[in-house]
Amino acid sequence: MKENIDAIILASGESSRFWPLAHDKHKSMYEIMGKPVISHTVEALAKIGVTHVIIVTRPSDSSIKDYLKDGKELGVDISYVIQEKPLGMGNAIQSAQDSVKSNYFFVSNADQVNADELAPKMIETLKSKKNIDSVLASQHTETPFNYGILEIENGMAKGIEEKPKKGTEKSNQMVIGIYLLAKRFLDTLNETETSQYAYEEALENYIKKYNSTAVCSFENIPEITLKLGWHLFNVNKYLMDKLLKTTQIHESAEISPTAIIKGNVHIGKNVKIFEHAVINGPCYINDDAIIGNNSLIRDYSYIGRKSIVGFNTEIKHSIMYDNVETHMNYIGDTIVDQNTAFGAGSITANRRLDRRCISTMVKGKNVDTNLSFFGSIVGRDVHTGIHTSIMPGIKIGAYSNIGSQTVLTKDVPEKTFVYIKQESIRKKSK
Amino acid sequence: MKENIDAIILASGESSRFWPLAHDKHKSMYEIMGKPVISHTVEALAKIGVTHVIIVTRPSDSSIKDYLKDGKELGVDISYVIQEKPLGMGNAIQSAQDSVKSNYFFVSNADQVNADELAPKMIETLKSKKNIDSVLASQHTETPFNYGILEIENGMAKGIEEKPKKGTEKSNQMVIGIYLLAKRFLDTLNETETSQYAYEEALENYIKKYNSTAVCSFENIPEITLKLGWHLFNVNKYLMDKLLKTTQIHESAEISPTAIIKGNVHIGKNVKIFEHAVINGPCYINDDAIIGNNSLIRDYSYIGRKSIVGFNTEIKHSIMYDNVETHMNYIGDTIVDQNTAFGAGSITANRRLDRRCISTMVKGKNVDTNLSFFGSIVGRDVHTGIHTSIMPGIKIGAYSNIGSQTVLTKDVPEKTFVYIKQESIRKKSK
Amino acid sequence: MKENIDAIILASGESSRFWPLAHDKHKSMYEIMGKPVISHTVEALAKIGVTHVIIVTRPSDSSIKDYLKDGKELGVDISYVIQEKPLGMGNAIQSAQDSVKSNYFFVSNADQVNADELAPKMIETLKSKKNIDSVLASQHTETPFNYGILEIENGMAKGIEEKPKKGTEKSNQMVIGIYLLAKRFLDTLNETETSQYAYEEALENYIKKYNSTAVCSFENIPEITLKLGWHLFNVNKYLMDKLLKTTQIHESAEISPTAIIKGNVHIGKNVKIFEHAVINGPCYINDDAIIGNNSLIRDYSYIGRKSIVGFNTEIKHSIMYDNVETHMNYIGDTIVDQNTAFGAGSITANRRLDRRCISTMVKGKNVDTNLSFFGSIVGRDVHTGIHTSIMPGIKIGAYSNIGSQTVLTKDVPEKTFVYIKQESIRKKSK
Repeated sequence: MKENIDAIILASGESSRFWPLAHDKHKSMYEIMGKPVISHTVEALAKIGVTHVIIVTRPSDSSIKDYLKDGKELGVDISYVIQEKPLGMGNAIQSAQDSVKSNYFFVSNADQVNADELAPKMIETLKSKKNIDSVLASQHTETPFNYGILEIENGMAKGIEEKPKKGTEKSNQMVIGIYLLAKRFLDTLNETETSQYAYEEALENYIKKYNSTAVCSFENIPEITLKLGWHLFNVNKYLMDKLLKTTQIHESAEISPTAIIKGNVHIGKNVKIFEHAVINGPCYINDDAIIGNNSLIRDYSYIGRKSIVGFNTEIKHSIMYDNVETHMNYIGDTIVDQNTAFGAGSITANRRLDRRCISTMVKGKNVDTNLSFFGSIVGRDVHTGIHTSIMPGIKIGAYSNIGSQTVLTKDVPEKTFVYIKQESIRKKSK
Repeated sequence: MKENIDAIILASGESSRFWPLAHDKHKSMYEIMGKPVISHTVEALAKIGVTHVIIVTRPSDSSIKDYLKDGKELGVDISYVIQEKPLGMGNAIQSAQDSVKSNYFFVSNADQVNADELAPKMIETLKSKKNIDSVLASQHTETPFNYGILEIENGMAKGIEEKPKKGTEKSNQMVIGIYLLAKRFLDTLNETETSQYAYEEALENYIKKYNSTAVCSFENIPEITLKLGWHLFNVNKYLMDKLLKTTQIHESAEISPTAIIKGNVHIGKNVKIFEHAVINGPCYINDDAIIGNNSLIRDYSYIGRKSIVGFNTEIKHSIMYDNVETHMNYIGDTIVDQNTAFGAGSITANRRLDRRCISTMVKGKNVDTNLSFFGSIVGRDVHTGIHTSIMPGIKIGAYSNIGSQTVLTKDVPEKTFVYIKQESIRKKSK
Repeated sequence: MKENIDAIILASGESSRFWPLAHDKHKSMYEIMGKPVISHTVEALAKIGVTHVIIVTRPSDSSIKDYLKDGKELGVDISYVIQEKPLGMGNAIQSAQDSVKSNYFFVSNADQVNADELAPKMIETLKSKKNIDSVLASQHTETPFNYGILEIENGMAKGIEEKPKKGTEKSNQMVIGIYLLAKRFLDTLNETETSQYAYEEALENYIKKYNSTAVCSFENIPEITLKLGWHLFNVNKYLMDKLLKTTQIHESAEISPTAIIKGNVHIGKNVKIFEHAVINGPCYINDDAIIGNNSLIRDYSYIGRKSIVGFNTEIKHSIMYDNVETHMNYIGDTIVDQNTAFGAGSITANRRLDRRCISTMVKGKNVDTNLSFFGSIVGRDVHTGIHTSIMPGIKIGAYSNIGSQTVLTKDVPEKTFVYIKQESIRKKSK
């Protein structure tokens, strides 16, 4: 890339579908392999030559700026721009437009951690023909009714429709959340009335008006997005496969000679691994974590800083953030936010008895996750009692407590104490 | 044995006292050490020289024929005969009588896997005196009121009484389910009116009429019978003690160097044994089974094909058929039919709190098993939720599901979903 | 010590605040490191030169005499004296007064196992000045309103007040349960009217009358007393730190090569330790105990004779007396009396969900233990079912049974059967 191309990263969305996560920070600040998702995205953009990144954030949220700072460490200059009101993606880009210095610019979702795999081909396409000044990326989808769907002719976009009715879709190509745009697109955007879908509308208008928007279709790439909490599993898998190519053990880690580490595993500073623990990589154990006796950590699990995988605990395909405590638990296909503690013997059920796919509530609606293995999403600072049973797909709000032997069959709001009333009988024996 | 002696094997009984097992096949098709019980019986007969076996089956049940086929592999010729209606043992023998080609013939229960220990002495007795043309086998019992009891004089049977009233029994010798009979016994049988007890009646008549029936009494032999489901434990122990004399590990098995195998253990094809698992023989692990991390398999356990003994699971003195899944369970003194899965943390209780013997329901009646350790019998294709508690002696019918944290205190019929209603309270915390 | 000083040991108290322990023996007969507490106290006194010990017991309690006998083995002569009625400490001393042969004598609580650290300085003080004929020991307390508090001037006692009102205390020095007294104190005691507090009253009178009572103040010593059941933890820690200086393994013990022993651990006769067990000292494993596969025994735990730490069980900072059985349990910060058995999967919760200090009922009153980690105290011959949840601070009376999946939220009296009524639904599935 010879010519500079700035990148606008959108991190001002509401994250409400990420509940009970993103309680007090943007969803892109959730970590994968010990770094916020947005940091991976910035790194991906830096890797393909972007030197100036404009991040659009919410007014009250300084977490991204606090973490990424001026971007020097990642090799980019970062400008921060605030979107004052949640008026949609178009408005977010407008908030950033004055900071764009290049003739072409990327717009990227904060979670587009695979930008480095998409952008080079997009730039190539941009340069391939004179009449092309914007490039969209797309990939195949089986459920076009959920996405923005492109109409494509000879590699050129002819139109874009958001969530077309079943059967009316113009193709099975969904647009991916990274866009390479000409500066004049901003004029079209500024002419469009502000609304939640102003961006898609402007794009449709721009495509039709100039016929200068090409499409790069990608095949066999994973779907990388963070719309819903459990999408963290996909991003986690994608990045572990990409970045965790060997076993890395920090010299300060103390590992019992009877512990067993298989596959690619990262073991951070001061990690302690006790007797007969087994770690089946790929797994990432962050600094100061304690892996207790007889514990088992399996495929694509992340253990946060200072977290404790207690005696006899199995962690399977789960993401556990900082300061989480477990003890004689099974945590499967589950995401656990920081400072949460599971009482001894608590279990996350991760399959239905009838083996069907697991559904979960999102903003009041029952959503099929299409996952046959899915445990729970547990907010920060939750404490569960002993022998707690968490049913598949159940979510627990931050700062809640769950009493011993509760079977959780529906979501628990924040700051709630749930406990059972048990009828017991006391009889004098002879 | 110079003269041929044919053997009729009776496998047409109803098996209803075997519930919830024998749901869709004859009880003698339940396996011990990876082979149906009836196969062990045929092998035992082949071993002592029987070359022609006539197996009487039910009309709709082809499982035995499908498995044993023409008997060539076991070194015998097998004829199959169908008993059209469940009209008792006498009628079953009558169904087979035309196939009998020898002057003397055995009648054996399908579960008489110790035939090779009994038959030689019976044949010897037959040959010992001219006036003897039939031989019964007997052993001591403490509960004559449950069995067919012989009246014996100088080694000759004088009569047989089914379940004599307490105190009226003529001896403490119960008749064993293998009989060596003269062909003319069939005439006596054919003269007897058809009924459930026609066989015992004919035997009584034959004894009285000819005074040619001798008795071989056996001392210190285990009682081998399959009347009730938990009798599988005895047959299992008998055959493991007899046949499992060394440790046999298939070359394709993958065994972690940290796994420990003690005593005589059979480990089949493609079995995988993970870290820190311990197997205390005698045990039989069938092909393609997976023995997970930290699991413990104890004395006289059988693990069926493709079954999974999951992380942290203990299997003690239990029989688990094919495709059974366990995970953080305790399965003690329990029989589990195929395709059944236990949710994480589910436990079979195998002792009463008051340490008395365990009773269980059989066809609507409460039966004392005389066992102080007895877990459960679980039918095929059952799924239990997490933290399920199964009380001692409880049985679960095939295709049933048990919800999380259910305490099962009575039997569950087939195709039933059992779950608990838990009263829980939700309070906002400050 | 040239002059003989006899010691009266008081072991006639009622121990009712020790419930559910001390069901059928004096609380000082509870063992630490395999010996009754009182035996440690006698040994401590013997060590500093006491040769004649007078033990005051209750009328019906021969357990102390049966154990200590004439004292020869401990190097002392023991006289036994019975206090006929529970009339207080003064009366107990009066019961023993005729047996005192020396000019000065110790009075010691039966649980004063640190007598050897206190007495030498007390004797030294006695000899240091002519006008001193009695010496009290004291230590600092933050809660003077709970104890006998001394008024001190220039090392001399000026008065003693039992449980002074908050703010009115004369010092923060509480009197320790070992006293070095002149024989003439008995005259003062005999002049005092018999009552529960006659001893403290006599002490106050004696101090005032003769001005001959010195005080030895000790700094930075642990508080050693056995008023309440959980005080056993302190005495246990004190004695393990003092007496368990190396790892001692009896030659008859059978220890799997895969078991791991760390820190100072005593392993008694015929102990069996199975595969992958881990013991983190200091711990004391008494004779004939069985430590099962994958079990974990942690800091300051005591395992009694013939007790079984079953498969996958974790014992943390707990005291388990003889013949206790565990199986897949977590026993944390808990005391378990003899012959008790925990059903598989039973757990003692040892922290509150809100992480506050744990309170417990003592003689009808809720008492704050000031412990943030405290499990349970379980009496003798208790059986719990599988999946029992015992809440922090709950106590279970002797000879009681607890049904499966009971959540114990209040104390269980003796000889009581507690079980839950679970509402379950049974539906035919399709």
